[in-house]
Amino acid sequence: MLPPDNKLERFFESHKGHEVLGILVILNALIWGIEGMVLFKTSPLLPVIHFIDKIILGIFVVELLTRIYASGLRFFKHGWNLFDAGVILIALTPSGGPLSVLRALRVLRVMRLISLFPRLKTVVQATCHAIPGILSVAVILLLSFYVASIIAFNLFADDSEHFGTLSRTMFTLFQLMLGDDWGNIVRNLLKTHPYCYLYFIPFMLLITFTVLNLFFGLIVDSMQNAAEAEDKELQTEPDPLTSLQADIQDLKKQIGNLQELLLKQQ
Amino acid sequence: MLPPDNKLERFFESHKGHEVLGILVILNALIWGIEGMVLFKTSPLLPVIHFIDKIILGIFVVELLTRIYASGLRFFKHGWNLFDAGVILIALTPSGGPLSVLRALRVLRVMRLISLFPRLKTVVQATCHAIPGILSVAVILLLSFYVASIIAFNLFADDSEHFGTLSRTMFTLFQLMLGDDWGNIVRNLLKTHPYCYLYFIPFMLLITFTVLNLFFGLIVDSMQNAAEAEDKELQTEPDPLTSLQADIQDLKKQIGNLQELLLKQQ
Amino acid sequence: MLPPDNKLERFFESHKGHEVLGILVILNALIWGIEGMVLFKTSPLLPVIHFIDKIILGIFVVELLTRIYASGLRFFKHGWNLFDAGVILIALTPSGGPLSVLRALRVLRVMRLISLFPRLKTVVQATCHAIPGILSVAVILLLSFYVASIIAFNLFADDSEHFGTLSRTMFTLFQLMLGDDWGNIVRNLLKTHPYCYLYFIPFMLLITFTVLNLFFGLIVDSMQNAAEAEDKELQTEPDPLTSLQADIQDLKKQIGNLQELLLKQQ
Amino acid sequence: MLPPDNKLERFFESHKGHEVLGILVILNALIWGIEGMVLFKTSPLLPVIHFIDKIILGIFVVELLTRIYASGLRFFKHGWNLFDAGVILIALTPSGGPLSVLRALRVLRVMRLISLFPRLKTVVQATCHAIPGILSVAVILLLSFYVASIIAFNLFADDSEHFGTLSRTMFTLFQLMLGDDWGNIVRNLLKTHPYCYLYFIPFMLLITFTVLNLFFGLIVDSMQNAAEAEDKELQTEPDPLTSLQADIQDLKKQIGNLQELLLKQQ
Repeated sequence: MLPPDNKLERFFESHKGHEVLGILVILNALIWGIEGMVLFKTSPLLPVIHFIDKIILGIFVVELLTRIYASGLRFFKHGWNLFDAGVILIALTPSGGPLSVLRALRVLRVMRLISLFPRLKTVVQATCHAIPGILSVAVILLLSFYVASIIAFNLFADDSEHFGTLSRTMFTLFQLMLGDDWGNIVRNLLKTHPYCYLYFIPFMLLITFTVLNLFFGLIVDSMQNAAEAEDKELQTEPDPLTSLQADIQDLKKQIGNLQELLLKQQ
Repeated sequence: MLPPDNKLERFFESHKGHEVLGILVILNALIWGIEGMVLFKTSPLLPVIHFIDKIILGIFVVELLTRIYASGLRFFKHGWNLFDAGVILIALTPSGGPLSVLRALRVLRVMRLISLFPRLKTVVQATCHAIPGILSVAVILLLSFYVASIIAFNLFADDSEHFGTLSRTMFTLFQLMLGDDWGNIVRNLLKTHPYCYLYFIPFMLLITFTVLNLFFGLIVDSMQNAAEAEDKELQTEPDPLTSLQADIQDLKKQIGNLQELLLKQQ
Repeated sequence: MLPPDNKLERFFESHKGHEVLGILVILNALIWGIEGMVLFKTSPLLPVIHFIDKIILGIFVVELLTRIYASGLRFFKHGWNLFDAGVILIALTPSGGPLSVLRALRVLRVMRLISLFPRLKTVVQATCHAIPGILSVAVILLLSFYVASIIAFNLFADDSEHFGTLSRTMFTLFQLMLGDDWGNIVRNLLKTHPYCYLYFIPFMLLITFTVLNLFFGLIVDSMQNAAEAEDKELQTEPDPLTSLQADIQDLKKQIGNLQELLLKQQ
Repeated sequence: MLPPDNKLERFFESHKGHEVLGILVILNALIWGIEGMVLFKTSPLLPVIHFIDKIILGIFVVELLTRIYASGLRFFKHGWNLFDAGVILIALTPSGGPLSVLRALRVLRVMRLISLFPRLKTVVQATCHAIPGILSVAVILLLSFYVASIIAFNLFADDSEHFGTLSRTMFTLFQLMLGDDWGNIVRNLLKTHPYCYLYFIPFMLLITFTVLNLFFGLIVDSMQNAAEAEDKELQTEPDPLTSLQADIQDLKKQIGNLQELLLKQQ
C-alpha cells in the first residue's frame, strides 16, 4: 500500500492532471492504432509499443489507487469511479486462452477520456437520462420484433437460406429493416409465397411506426421538460397579482371607513 | 359456465395478477422461441412444449371468461378487451389445412403483455392518437405512389424484369425508395431510356418531400398540442386582471361618492 | 358552348358533387390499375376499360367547362383551377408518335382528388409554403453537389465505369449518398487512388451536414411560426395592465382632490 | 499596383455588381460542366472554354485586388474575405506535376456564389454556429468508432478481406453503418465467429444512439435558444406589475392621510 500521498492525489484531481492523463490516453490510443498496422508483420516496433503500453497502464493504476486511497469505500459509490476501475481491471486481467476476448476489450481504456473531461461526461449523462423515457417504446419494439420473427419463421421456413431457423429469421428481418438486399430476399420469397406482402407491409409499417415513435418520444420528452421549466416561471407570476388584489381589497375597506366617518360627521 | 367467482376476477385485475399473467406470457414467448429452434429435429422436448403451451392458453381462457362474466356485455365496449379476446380466439381456432396461417398468428398472444402493463398501453394509445393527424398526408403519399407506379409502368414496361407488370413496378419503386440496388436498376434503365432521370428526379423529390411532410406533421402536431396546453394556462390568467379592473372601477365610484359627500358638507 | 346551366355548376361545387367526382376519380384509378394488369394480354376487358375511361373523362370535361363558364376569365387566376385544367388538357392531347409520354401522364388526373377535398388541399398548400424557407439551403446543396461532381470527375476519371463522364460521376455520387453499393465502388477506387478518402470524408460530411441543415431549417421554421403566434398573444396582454395603471393614476388624482377639499374645510 | 479606383470598388460592392459577379460564377460553372463533357474527345470547343475561363478568373482577380486595395490589411480579418482570397489563390497556382489535384479544386471558385448573396451567407453561418454545440458529441462518436474499430480488428482479423488491417476494419464498419452489404459481411463473419453478434448489437446500438444524440443535441439547442428569447420577453413583463404595486402602496398612504385628517376634524 502507498503512503498517504495527498500531493499526488491533488495533482490527479487538478485541471492540469486531467490534461496530462488525457494526453496519455490519446497517446495510448495512437499506439494501439500503430500496433494494429504492424501486428502481423515481424516488426521491431512491437516490443517498444508493448513497453509504452505497460508504462501508461502503470500510471493509470497508480492514479486509480491514490484516488481509492483518498476516498476509501466511498470511491465505489460513484458510477464514473466504477467505470474507471472496471476499465483498468479489464486491462490487468491475464488474457491468455479462453479470455483472449478481454485483450481486445482493453482498448475500452480510451473511454477514460470521457470521465476526464466534464463536457464529454455531460453528453454521456444526458444520453443515459434519455434512456428511461424511451424504455417502454424499446420494450414494445423488441416484443414486436420477436413476435414478427416467430410468425415469419412459421410462415416462410421453407426458404431455408433466409428463414430456416429462428435466429436466421431474426437476422434476415433485421437486414430487411436496414434495407440491405431487400429486393433479392423478398423477390425470392414471392416465388414460393405470392401473398407474403400481406406479411411484409404490416411488418414494415409497424416497425417504422414504432421506431418513429421512439424518435418522437425523445423530442416530445425534451419539449415537455422545456415547457415545464417555463410553466414554473409562469406560476411565480400570479403572486404579485394576488397581492395586488389583497391591496385593493384593503383600499376598499379604508375608503369604506372614510365614508362612514364622513357620514357620522354629517 | 363458471360460478360467480369474484375472488378470481379480483385476482386477475390486481397488480399481482397482472404480474403473474405477464410472467406467463413471457414464459410462453420463450417456449415458442425454443419450439422454433427444435421444430424440424425430432426432439423429446416438443410434446412438453405443446403441453405447457396448452396449460398457459387454458389460464388465459379462464382469465378472459371470468372478466366477461364479471362485466357482461359491457366487456365488448372497450378496445383493449376486444384485443385480448381476439388474441385468444386466434389461438383457439383449429389451424389445419387452409387456416395454417392462423397457427403462425397465435404468437400474437405475446402482445397481451401490452394490455397488462399501463406504461406500455399508454405508448400504444399515444401512437394510435397520432394516426388521424397524419392520415391526410398518408393518403397523398399512397396516391402519389399509385400514380407514379402507373406512369412508370407505362413508360418502362419493356424492362420486363423490373417494370413488366403493375405489381412488379410497385415492388421496384418501393425498392428504389429504400435505396436497395438503386444503382443497378436505374443504370440498366438508362441504357434503353436515356431520359428516365426526368422521371426519377421528380419522383424522388416528391416522395422524399411527402415523407418528410409526414414526419414534420407529427412534430408540429405535438408542438401545437403543447402550445395549446400552455395557451389554456395563459387564458386563465386574465381573470385576476379583469377582477382587478372591476375592483378599481368600484374604488373610483366609492371615491366619487366621498367627493360628493364632502362637497355637500361645504 | 353550353347554355348557362347554373344548376349543374352548383352541383359540381356542392359537397355531394365533390363526393361524386371523387368516386369517379377513384374508379378511374382502379380502372387504370386493371388496364395495367391486362395490357399485354389480348383481353376482352380492354375496350370496356377504354369506354369507361372516356365517359369519366367526358364528365370531367363538362365539369371543367361549366366552372369556366360560371367564373369567366377569373377562373384562370387560381392555382388549383389551373392544376385542374392542366390535368384534363394532358388527357385530351392526342398521344401518338413522339407524344406517347403524355399518355402515361394522363394518370395525373388522379391527383384531382386533392383539389376535391379541402383536407388534402391544405396538406399540399402547407408543403408548398415550406418551400421558400428551404430554398437557400437547397441552392447550396445543389451547388455543393455540382462542385463535388466536377472535382470527382477531374480526380477519378480513369475509373471510367463510375466516373468516366460528368453525368456518370453525378449518378455515382448520388448512388453513394443513398449508400447503395458504397463498399464496392469505394473499394474499387481505393486500388487506384489510395488517398481518395481525403475526398470522400469531406464530401460525406458536407452533404450530410447540409441535408441535416435542410431538415432543421424546416423544424426551426415551424417552431418560430409557433413562437411568433404565441408572442402576438402575449403582446395583447399588457393592454389591461396599462389601463389598470391609468385607472390607478386617476385614483391618485381623485384622492389628491379629496385631500385638498378636506384641507380647505379646516 | 492599381491606382485608387474607388468607382470600381463601389461597383463590386453594389447590389448590381454582386449580380454581375454571380452571373459570371454561374457561367464559369456551366463552362466547367461543358468541359467535363468534351474533355476526352478532341473538340474545337476546348480552347474557347479555357479562354473564357481565364477571362472570368481575370475579372475575379481584379475584384479581389480592388477590395484588398480599398480595405488594406483589415481585409484579411474577415472570414469571408479569406474564403474569397483562398478560392482565387487555388485557381492561380500552377497545377502541373504533383499539384494536379489543385486543378480539380479550382472548381471551388463556384462557392464564391455563397459570399455574394447574403441569404446563402446566412445559411452557411448558421451551419457553422451549430458546430460547437455538437462538437462534444462528435468527439465521443469518433472516439467510439476508433475504439470499436480496434476491438473489431483484434477479434475478427482472420476475415482478412474485411477486417485484415485496421484501416480496412474502419472501412468495413463505416460500410456496415450505412447498411450497405450488411447481410453478406455479417453472414460471412458468423461462419467463423458464431458469437460476433455480441459485438455487433452493442456496436449498432451505441453508434445509433450517439448519432441520434447528435441530432437531438441540435434540436434541443435550437429550442433552448427560442425558449431563452421568449424568457427575456417575459422578464420585461413583471415591471408594470411592480410599478402598479408601488402605486397602490402610495394610494394606501394617501387614504391613510385622509383618514387622519378626518379624525382630526372630529
